[in-house]
Amino acid sequence: MRIQQHHYRTIWQTGEHVSIIDQTQLPFAFEVLTLSSVADMCHAIRTMQVRGAPLIGVAAAYGVTLAMRVDPSDQALNAAVATLVATRPTAVNLAWAAHLMQQALLPLPPSQRLQRAWQLAQQLAEEDVAQNTAIGSHGKPLIEHVWMTQVSTGARAPCVQVLTHCNAGWLATVDMGTALAPIYAAYDAGIPIHVWVDETRPRNQGASLTAWELGQHGVPHTVISDNAGGHLMQHGQVDMVIVGADRVSGAGDVCNKVGTYLKALAAQHNGIPFYAAVPTPTIDWQLSDISEIEIEMRDPDEVAFMQGINAQGALTRVRVIPAQSPALNPAFDVTPAHLVTAVITEQGVFTPAQLTQLKHPLKEA
Amino acid sequence: MRIQQHHYRTIWQTGEHVSIIDQTQLPFAFEVLTLSSVADMCHAIRTMQVRGAPLIGVAAAYGVTLAMRVDPSDQALNAAVATLVATRPTAVNLAWAAHLMQQALLPLPPSQRLQRAWQLAQQLAEEDVAQNTAIGSHGKPLIEHVWMTQVSTGARAPCVQVLTHCNAGWLATVDMGTALAPIYAAYDAGIPIHVWVDETRPRNQGASLTAWELGQHGVPHTVISDNAGGHLMQHGQVDMVIVGADRVSGAGDVCNKVGTYLKALAAQHNGIPFYAAVPTPTIDWQLSDISEIEIEMRDPDEVAFMQGINAQGALTRVRVIPAQSPALNPAFDVTPAHLVTAVITEQGVFTPAQLTQLKHPLKEA
Repeated sequence: MRIQQHHYRTIWQTGEHVSIIDQTQLPFAFEVLTLSSVADMCHAIRTMQVRGAPLIGVAAAYGVTLAMRVDPSDQALNAAVATLVATRPTAVNLAWAAHLMQQALLPLPPSQRLQRAWQLAQQLAEEDVAQNTAIGSHGKPLIEHVWMTQVSTGARAPCVQVLTHCNAGWLATVDMGTALAPIYAAYDAGIPIHVWVDETRPRNQGASLTAWELGQHGVPHTVISDNAGGHLMQHGQVDMVIVGADRVSGAGDVCNKVGTYLKALAAQHNGIPFYAAVPTPTIDWQLSDISEIEIEMRDPDEVAFMQGINAQGALTRVRVIPAQSPALNPAFDVTPAHLVTAVITEQGVFTPAQLTQLKHPLKEA
Repeated sequence: MRIQQHHYRTIWQTGEHVSIIDQTQLPFAFEVLTLSSVADMCHAIRTMQVRGAPLIGVAAAYGVTLAMRVDPSDQALNAAVATLVATRPTAVNLAWAAHLMQQALLPLPPSQRLQRAWQLAQQLAEEDVAQNTAIGSHGKPLIEHVWMTQVSTGARAPCVQVLTHCNAGWLATVDMGTALAPIYAAYDAGIPIHVWVDETRPRNQGASLTAWELGQHGVPHTVISDNAGGHLMQHGQVDMVIVGADRVSGAGDVCNKVGTYLKALAAQHNGIPFYAAVPTPTIDWQLSDISEIEIEMRDPDEVAFMQGINAQGALTRVRVIPAQSPALNPAFDVTPAHLVTAVITEQGVFTPAQLTQLKHPLKEA
């Protein structure tokens, strides 16, 4: 993705360190942070300086690498993996990537671990970009089909209206995005498209991150409150919903940012297709019952406070609920498979029932 | 309702003027404003210093009264009514009250209009309080029934969990509230109750007003993001949904704050009853097709900015979306009758199909 005429990824190696874009400062400031230790990386993941299921998978791999830089022992490796996995419980990618690093590095002599760790982390980053590019290619025809239908039925101003929730864009991955990959692919191919961006309280990833990255790329979009999507669907203003996911069960249940379930219900009620776009490592084949998923309860202060820039342009945090009122902050919800039209993956588009056709290294485990 | 040991209503006559609580300052400051003209009242309604369908009905009546104080002519009366009706298009109560005043005052000689206007406005205020008290009495048994069922099935810590959206409480009415009236009635009767308060973006009426007034009354409550309610329903944490409404069709379609529809869908999907609590003037018998309702599009800046108090305790407005990103702000949505379990009115509890049994002065018009 281009930011101010430069191509950026969200995470990259800088000498012996790892650089990330501090996503807690967006959209008001663009700051690059350099991380030197696994503790730095855990802090970055926990505070959501890096966030998004695919990105925190790669971040975990780089976190293990930073640990190997300081101490390549078995003990340090196992401790790094355990600490990283504990930072955020819901996304399957994080544990998947950390364990992949562990399994690949443990058999090696400690002296060879750092170099191999850099290679593996880099490889995971490249795979993420390749996967997302493929998700874009497979998702683009779904958008194109709506546009062609509009054109063939003589719509006055054909334009495909896509609603998305949270940020499953470039910023949630190493590059390209998952839910936004088909949107970028369609936009780049000249298909008229407009994106309804759910604000995504309490952390506002839609209003702050999705709006910002779509704007940087030039994609027409409009920010709406999380409450507005159902109304827009009732009035024919949404042609499809595309979201990312932190975890998808083998049956096609979609665990994603809290509020996704409400949009899926409204989509079904209005006959609008609902897609989750994910790379296959996001599919958790071990999960037989979706209610096994641990839903992360985040700090209630994320509900009680809101961050933005004040009239002087300074980043400011304001309290938005009475000081005496408690708040609760579940971070994710689960959309049951029967509300999911299809899952867009790097291997193609699959209905929940077709997911078993997917090839996946962990599927048989 | 009691605020700092004093009983308050939300609107009252003060000599020749009208006093209101400035709801745009809550929950961070409690300020009473004195209004002297119909222009003052229109400003108060438009900027939502007074808001809530029942309250702005009474406010419109007081607005006509303030106009009569300055000029009791036919022309001034008609102009005041037209200006007031134009302030906010969605709520039926506002136009209903303004036209009721117009019809009552026009036949009188101008010299008698002011005194009669004060009487009528006061009468509407008293009727609102009586209606809401009756809504509380009729709604309370619904809550009590859930509690009794919990007790009889041996629930460990019986407590009725009610989810509400926006503010249909004391602050939305002259006193008592509509959606919150059954909650206050149940709480005052000693029934264990806990309220999930939807934040209600973009104007945060839940987080700022509902949380504040429940807290003032001592009712246990927790603020959640608008996205969280579906997840709580999936996990058995919600026993019923009670909301107010700005307009209800004779068929039982409920027009209320945007996002209500999403909660109604989730309630139905999880087998949870969904109630709208309204006084019967909120029912629009003229409305044959719900899509006739004009949905107010409010200032996009309500989405782009958020208000709260900063670390120094000063009321501060912060921008929460990129400066280049547009926003759209539909204020209401319509929940179709098939998602509505029942409507709680001052005359009793009616399913949508039973609404035709209601008595209403305008029903036959």
